[in-house]
Amino acid sequence: MSKYKALKEECFEANMQLPKLDLVIYTFGNVSAVDREKGVFAIKPSGVPYDVLKADDIVIVDFDNNIIEGEMRPSSDTKTHAFLYKHWETIGGICHTHSTYAVAWAQAQRDIPIMGTTHADYLTHDIPCAPPMSDELIEGDYEHNTGQQILDCFANKRLDYKEVEMVLIGNHGPFTWGKSADKAVFNSKLLDELGKMAHIALSINPEAPRLKDALIKKHYERKHGKNAYYGQN
Amino acid sequence: MSKYKALKEECFEANMQLPKLDLVIYTFGNVSAVDREKGVFAIKPSGVPYDVLKADDIVIVDFDNNIIEGEMRPSSDTKTHAFLYKHWETIGGICHTHSTYAVAWAQAQRDIPIMGTTHADYLTHDIPCAPPMSDELIEGDYEHNTGQQILDCFANKRLDYKEVEMVLIGNHGPFTWGKSADKAVFNSKLLDELGKMAHIALSINPEAPRLKDALIKKHYERKHGKNAYYGQN
Amino acid sequence: MSKYKALKEECFEANMQLPKLDLVIYTFGNVSAVDREKGVFAIKPSGVPYDVLKADDIVIVDFDNNIIEGEMRPSSDTKTHAFLYKHWETIGGICHTHSTYAVAWAQAQRDIPIMGTTHADYLTHDIPCAPPMSDELIEGDYEHNTGQQILDCFANKRLDYKEVEMVLIGNHGPFTWGKSADKAVFNSKLLDELGKMAHIALSINPEAPRLKDALIKKHYERKHGKNAYYGQN
Amino acid sequence: MSKYKALKEECFEANMQLPKLDLVIYTFGNVSAVDREKGVFAIKPSGVPYDVLKADDIVIVDFDNNIIEGEMRPSSDTKTHAFLYKHWETIGGICHTHSTYAVAWAQAQRDIPIMGTTHADYLTHDIPCAPPMSDELIEGDYEHNTGQQILDCFANKRLDYKEVEMVLIGNHGPFTWGKSADKAVFNSKLLDELGKMAHIALSINPEAPRLKDALIKKHYERKHGKNAYYGQN
Repeated sequence: MSKYKALKEECFEANMQLPKLDLVIYTFGNVSAVDREKGVFAIKPSGVPYDVLKADDIVIVDFDNNIIEGEMRPSSDTKTHAFLYKHWETIGGICHTHSTYAVAWAQAQRDIPIMGTTHADYLTHDIPCAPPMSDELIEGDYEHNTGQQILDCFANKRLDYKEVEMVLIGNHGPFTWGKSADKAVFNSKLLDELGKMAHIALSINPEAPRLKDALIKKHYERKHGKNAYYGQN
Repeated sequence: MSKYKALKEECFEANMQLPKLDLVIYTFGNVSAVDREKGVFAIKPSGVPYDVLKADDIVIVDFDNNIIEGEMRPSSDTKTHAFLYKHWETIGGICHTHSTYAVAWAQAQRDIPIMGTTHADYLTHDIPCAPPMSDELIEGDYEHNTGQQILDCFANKRLDYKEVEMVLIGNHGPFTWGKSADKAVFNSKLLDELGKMAHIALSINPEAPRLKDALIKKHYERKHGKNAYYGQN
Repeated sequence: MSKYKALKEECFEANMQLPKLDLVIYTFGNVSAVDREKGVFAIKPSGVPYDVLKADDIVIVDFDNNIIEGEMRPSSDTKTHAFLYKHWETIGGICHTHSTYAVAWAQAQRDIPIMGTTHADYLTHDIPCAPPMSDELIEGDYEHNTGQQILDCFANKRLDYKEVEMVLIGNHGPFTWGKSADKAVFNSKLLDELGKMAHIALSINPEAPRLKDALIKKHYERKHGKNAYYGQN
Repeated sequence: MSKYKALKEECFEANMQLPKLDLVIYTFGNVSAVDREKGVFAIKPSGVPYDVLKADDIVIVDFDNNIIEGEMRPSSDTKTHAFLYKHWETIGGICHTHSTYAVAWAQAQRDIPIMGTTHADYLTHDIPCAPPMSDELIEGDYEHNTGQQILDCFANKRLDYKEVEMVLIGNHGPFTWGKSADKAVFNSKLLDELGKMAHIALSINPEAPRLKDALIKKHYERKHGKNAYYGQN
């Protein structure tokens, strides 16, 4: 039996949430889960529809993009996942979708502004939209450079990947991450919903303000501050 | 057996409607049900996903926010519920969600105008949007002050909580109530649907007028007036 | 056994389509089916949720609004149904909903323009929006006068109820009809979908033109003209 | 047993996907599948609701619109399918729907601009919207001329049907095709989703640019270029 069985199962279950949460159609999207001790991650195989995907199809890859186990070709976005795992040492899972509202904001090349406490319950900044890559980077090692683009965006905007667990790639779509593959999927669903709410709010009132600082701080801290009182832990 | 068993069941069933009605995802939202004789209310535990929630998990709390029964921490919004039960003596249930259209109007900081008979069938006023709290109140006892914010909004707009069973908190989302937890949930669904209809109507015709007074009166009274002829009672 | 059993079943089945087609929530909406020979129609009882509605609950009413059979109070819109059956002698069923897009156009007080062949496949005119009633008529026999308002709208716009089987009542919502209760429900679903398509088309291009006459004629006639070649009859 | 049994099954299964993918309601839409060797195609019968459609109902037609096998009348759009099969010799299936966003763009008489990589993953051009036909052609052999209209549109815009497998007919709706009936259905779903994403993106930012050439090329080639690395083949 594969020593990666549990990791593959975790990755499989996280991927299978995507169609249930209406974040993907057909073969769109991919989720990975990492095992830091073994130095590998599990990722969806490329182009396989969710209704035929099996846990056994999941591919095991190391951080240099070598296939360690698996019969199938891994997601075409694998290098972006590997890049992020390599540089961000505390994340446990990554999710990429082409969900409707996240893609729409990415196509609009706009950060999703923080407009309410639904947003502040999870992060205190606008959801960043990285600019489209330069032609040179696109024609180079594209998926690797997509990872670099995300890092550069976080550096330029002085964001911490432990606090802001999501990004839009301009004209492309969202990448999200978290302590586990499950949490990465949660963040993709949250991102799409925040994008929908902000879009409708701005349709109703184009002058609607950003959430004020006191509310950003309050809602984030009641969930994530040192005296947090949300949840059971 | 707990003497609060029936109350917990009522609260549980009402909470479980939220995902079915597409008003919440994951752990979002909470419903409570009150027992006036016993001086307590039952409320969803904090941060528990609906697909694992059990009736036994429901927490019993008194109007001063003391936990009377239950192993789990109650909803982080518990103090707002307690405040409203204390001040509004005839309500039997309260519901809080982050449903899409209600949140969008709250983020737009706009009352939802009464534009049609769907609205007038249930209430004769615009759905009020309370302004965001002052920084001082946010940094104080926030959830308690959210209750106060709702009361102040109703006082300023001269609204009666028995007639208008819903409010938006600016930049946050909706609270609704009613004679039972079920009715509070109904009001949350109604509010979201009214917000959607008003948003689309104003997209089609930004000059669309409010509903005229004669229609407001007629539709409300055929359901709720002394000669009401809607329904079976 | 009731001699109206088949009529009640037809009416029940038609009503039960409304929640399945996402045209209603809770107790909203009502469908009726007529038996011209017996001079009666069957209609949903007032305020009964669809998930507890039974065929036996359906109420039998004559064209003068007398209850002929049934334990429950009929829909509060019964007089509008009776009025339309009385004046339009070839219709077999009537449907009333508060579906989202139909209500939005009614609240916008705008006819839904004929913008495509989806529309022309079924009717050759804009979907009329009757103006809100005068205060005098609202304060009078309101549901009876709603029927009159529909007739006046069709007279003013020179529409034939056999060709245009749907109307919006300004600030209220849609009524639709047809040769059977089933067809009336179909028309309600069609109306909501046409309203959604027209709304989005005009969002994309506010200058989008009405469908040209040759296409209106062609599409309507291939389904309904004397040389129709759509369908199996 | 019919020698067209397998072809009918393929066509039936493809048609049955349309309601599941929310691309049609009631009897709307039709899919065909071709057998080039036998010189025939299988197509949905006209006006049959999906919930009663059976594989046996599928009609076999040749490229001159003669019915070869089947008890029912074929889709009223059959001549358009025949025309396209005759002129485009490598396509294996055709799909026609009245899906919401595709129809909305058709009614807006606008090409759907390529705004993101979701689009570029499948095609490198804007999705063309053919202008409405001249009155003369409408009054002639309408469905045959619809096929001609599509060919003319592709000629005018110098598009290759092997690269761009979809078109909007102005004021009508989408036709899509592909190497199989399944792929044609996939393209209809993709088209509707691309139309929705572009609509929302332009609502958020009316000045949002088209996708830049380097990204168009990159995404298309990683799926379809000679060094493609998407999928398992």
